[in-house]
Amino acid sequence: MAVTEAERRAMTHALALAARGPRGPNPQVGAVILSAAGEVIAEGWHRGAGTPHAEVDALSKLPPDAARGATAVVTLEPCNHTGRTGPCALALIDAGVSRVVYALDDPGAVSGGGAERLRTAGVEVESGEQADAATALITDWLTAQRLGRPHVTVKWAQSLDGRAAAADGTSQWITGPEARGDVHRRRAVADAIVVGTGTVLADDPALTARDGDALFEHQPVPVVIGSRETPADAALRRHPHEPLFFDTRDLTAVLADLHARGIQTVFVEGGPTLASAFIAAGLADRVLAYLAPVLLGGDRLALTDIGVASIVEARRLTIDEWVPLGADLLAIAHSARTEEGEL
Amino acid sequence: MAVTEAERRAMTHALALAARGPRGPNPQVGAVILSAAGEVIAEGWHRGAGTPHAEVDALSKLPPDAARGATAVVTLEPCNHTGRTGPCALALIDAGVSRVVYALDDPGAVSGGGAERLRTAGVEVESGEQADAATALITDWLTAQRLGRPHVTVKWAQSLDGRAAAADGTSQWITGPEARGDVHRRRAVADAIVVGTGTVLADDPALTARDGDALFEHQPVPVVIGSRETPADAALRRHPHEPLFFDTRDLTAVLADLHARGIQTVFVEGGPTLASAFIAAGLADRVLAYLAPVLLGGDRLALTDIGVASIVEARRLTIDEWVPLGADLLAIAHSARTEEGEL
Ligand SMILES: NC(=O)c1ccc[n+]([C@@H]2O[C@H](COP(=O)([O-])OP(=O)(O)OC[C@H]3O[C@@H](n4cnc5c(N)ncnc54)[C@H](OP(=O)(O)O)[C@@H]3O)[C@@H](O)[C@H]2O)c1
Ligand SMILES: NC(=O)c1ccc[n+]([C@@H]2O[C@H](COP(=O)([O-])OP(=O)(O)OC[C@H]3O[C@@H](n4cnc5c(N)ncnc54)[C@H](OP(=O)(O)O)[C@@H]3O)[C@@H](O)[C@H]2O)c1
Repeated sequence: MAVTEAERRAMTHALALAARGPRGPNPQVGAVILSAAGEVIAEGWHRGAGTPHAEVDALSKLPPDAARGATAVVTLEPCNHTGRTGPCALALIDAGVSRVVYALDDPGAVSGGGAERLRTAGVEVESGEQADAATALITDWLTAQRLGRPHVTVKWAQSLDGRAAAADGTSQWITGPEARGDVHRRRAVADAIVVGTGTVLADDPALTARDGDALFEHQPVPVVIGSRETPADAALRRHPHEPLFFDTRDLTAVLADLHARGIQTVFVEGGPTLASAFIAAGLADRVLAYLAPVLLGGDRLALTDIGVASIVEARRLTIDEWVPLGADLLAIAHSARTEEGEL
Repeated sequence: MAVTEAERRAMTHALALAARGPRGPNPQVGAVILSAAGEVIAEGWHRGAGTPHAEVDALSKLPPDAARGATAVVTLEPCNHTGRTGPCALALIDAGVSRVVYALDDPGAVSGGGAERLRTAGVEVESGEQADAATALITDWLTAQRLGRPHVTVKWAQSLDGRAAAADGTSQWITGPEARGDVHRRRAVADAIVVGTGTVLADDPALTARDGDALFEHQPVPVVIGSRETPADAALRRHPHEPLFFDTRDLTAVLADLHARGIQTVFVEGGPTLASAFIAAGLADRVLAYLAPVLLGGDRLALTDIGVASIVEARRLTIDEWVPLGADLLAIAHSARTEEGEL
C-alpha cells in the first residue's frame, strides 16, 4: 500500500519532533502513531543515549492496546537490538501496530534489520518516505557511523607560499577579517575544536566561536592533544564547555573517544604539527586552507611533514570550492582518491 | 590647429610602420611626411639601435627642400639628443618642416625636449594623437625605461602548501597540462627566460616556448645565472637563441646588462633559490604562482628565504587575478605597496 497523505504529514511532523532531540552518540529520531482512521494518537522523540527510543516514547503515551491496528511513522528504521532499551521493532510488534512507515534504513550492523523483523511478524512496512529530509537531519551522525569516527576538518591559514608565520613567529594577521569571521562561523557548527599543546602554549587561544565580541549560541567542545600541561590560567579553561585533554599522540584513539562522547564533527585548528599529523595519518576528511596574498619565506611552515616521500605519494586533492574572502582565498578540498573520507 | 583627418590617417599608418621595427634598446617608431596639401610624400621607421630614427629615415627618401612646409607625423616625440644619430628635432627643423604631429611624449631625460626645441624654432607642434595605441605598441619599452631595467616576472609552480617538489626531489608533474601550456605561452611573449644554475643542473631544461611539440615563433633568450658550469651537452645550448651566462649573484647587474641588450621583459623561472633572491632584492614586478591541488609537506620549498624576519615585513601582494587552469589555480600578483614595480 502506498504512503497515504496522513502518513506523509505525520512524517513531516516526526522530523520536526526528531530535531528536538540532542546531537550525540545516538541519532535524532521522531515518531508519530496514527490510528487506523489516520489520526495522530501519540508522538515521541529520542532525548539522547540512555533514554527511550522515539517509537517507545510515543507508545508509552498510549493506554495498553490503544496502538492495536495503528500505524507508526518513524524517521529511522526501528531498531532491532537490545541496548540500554529493548528493540523498538519488538515493542511495535508487541503493541499490535499493523503498519510502519519509516524514512531511512538504519545503517548500523547491530541495530539494523528491524524492518525485516517487523515484516516477519506480519507488520506492513514502507520505507524511504522523506528520506532526503531525514538524511539531512542526521547527516553528520550518518557520516560518523560510516567512518566509524567523527568527521574531521583540518583548517589552517597560510601565506601564499605556505607559511604560518614569519621567521620570528609573528603571524597577526596573515589573513583578513573576512577569513577570520569565516573560521568562527565554522567553529560554531562543529561539535569539537581540536588543537595541539603547541598552539595552546604559543597562542593561549580561547577556542570559542565568536560573532564579533559575542559568543555564538553553539560552542564547540575544546580539545587539546599532547602531553605538555595546559596552564591553570589558560584562556580555554574559561570556555563555556569543559575542555577535554588527551595526553597522547594517538589520534585514532582520540577520535574514538570523541565519537563515543557523541561528537560527530571535529574542526582541527592546528598548529602545523597537529594538522600535519592528521593528514599524515589519513584522518583528514576535508581540508580548509585559507590563503593570504602575502609572501613570507622562511621556515615557519603551515604544514610540516605529511609522510610524502616521492611525488607519486602526493596527497592529491579535489578542490570543492575556492571561496574569496576579502583579499584572501579559501580552498575547500577533499582527497582526490575518495569521494570523502580519508585524505 | 586641430589634427586633420589626413594627419589622423597618417598616424595610423605611422603606427603600422613602427611595428615593423624590432624590439630592442630603442623604441619602435614610425613616421609619415605629409605635403602641405595633406598627401603622403614619404614614410620611414626605426630599424633598431645604430640605424636612423624614423623621421630621419622618412626625410632621407625626399629630395632636398621637398619637406619644406610639410607636416611630419611621428609616433613618438622627435628626440633632442645626439647619439649615434643627430637629434631628430634638428633634422626636421633643417628640412623646413612647418608642423609636427606626434603621439607620445619621449619619457627619456636625455632624449626628451624635442617638442620644445621644435616650437622654439617656430614649428607648429601637436601631441597626443592616438597616444593610447602608441603606448600599447611600446608599452614594455616604456616600462623598462621607467624602471631603468627590464620588467621582471617571477614564476613558480607549487603544491597548495608551498612545495616545489616531494622530499626526494621528484616533481613531475605537480601542475597539469593547462598550467604548463600557460607557462609556455607566457615564455613566448617574454624577451628573456632566466634560471639559476641549480635548475640547469637538476632539470636540464630546454628553455624554449613550445606549443605542444612545436616551437612558438618567438623564443625568449635563455639566461643562466650562477657560477657553476653549464654542461657542454645541456639542452639549453641547442636553444634557437645563443644562451647568456652570468657568473655572478648580482641580479641588478644582470638586469642592467640585459636592458642594455634591449631586453624589456624577463621571465624568471626559478628555481626556488633564484626566485627568492629576486623577491628578496625587490626586483620582482609581478609574481605568477601556479598552485596545484596537492599537499606535499617536507622541505623542498617553492620559495626559500625572502628576507622577511617579522610579519610587519611580509611582502603583501595585490592579486590581479586568480586564473583557473584545469585543476590548478594561477595567482597573478604584484606588490601591494606599489601599483607596479618593486615587490
Ligand atoms: N596558521 C595557522 O592556521 C595556525 C593555527 C594554529 C596554530 N598556529 C601556530 O602554530 C604554532 C604552534 O605550532 P605547533 O606545531 O607546535 O602546534 P600544535 O600542532 O598545536 O602542537 C604540537 C604538539 O601537539 C602534540 N601532538 C598531539 N598529537 C600529535 C601527533 N600525532 N604528532 C605530533 N604531535 C602531536 C604534541 O604535543 P606534546 O609535545 O605536548 O606531546 C606536539 O608537540 C604557534 O606559533 C601557532 O601560532 C598556526
Ligand atoms: N617549482 C618550480 O616552479 C621550479 C622551477 C624551477 C626549478 N625548480 C626546481 O628547483 C630545483 C633547483 O633549485 P635551486 O634553488 O638550486 O635552483 P636555482 O634557483 O635555479 O639555482 C640556484 C643557483 O642560482 C645561482 N644564483 C644566481 N644568483 C643568485 C642569487 N642572487 N642568490 C643565490 N643564488 C644565485 C647560484 O648558483 P651558483 O651556486 O652556481 O653560483 C645558486 O646556487 C630543481 O630541483 C628544480 O627542479 C622548481
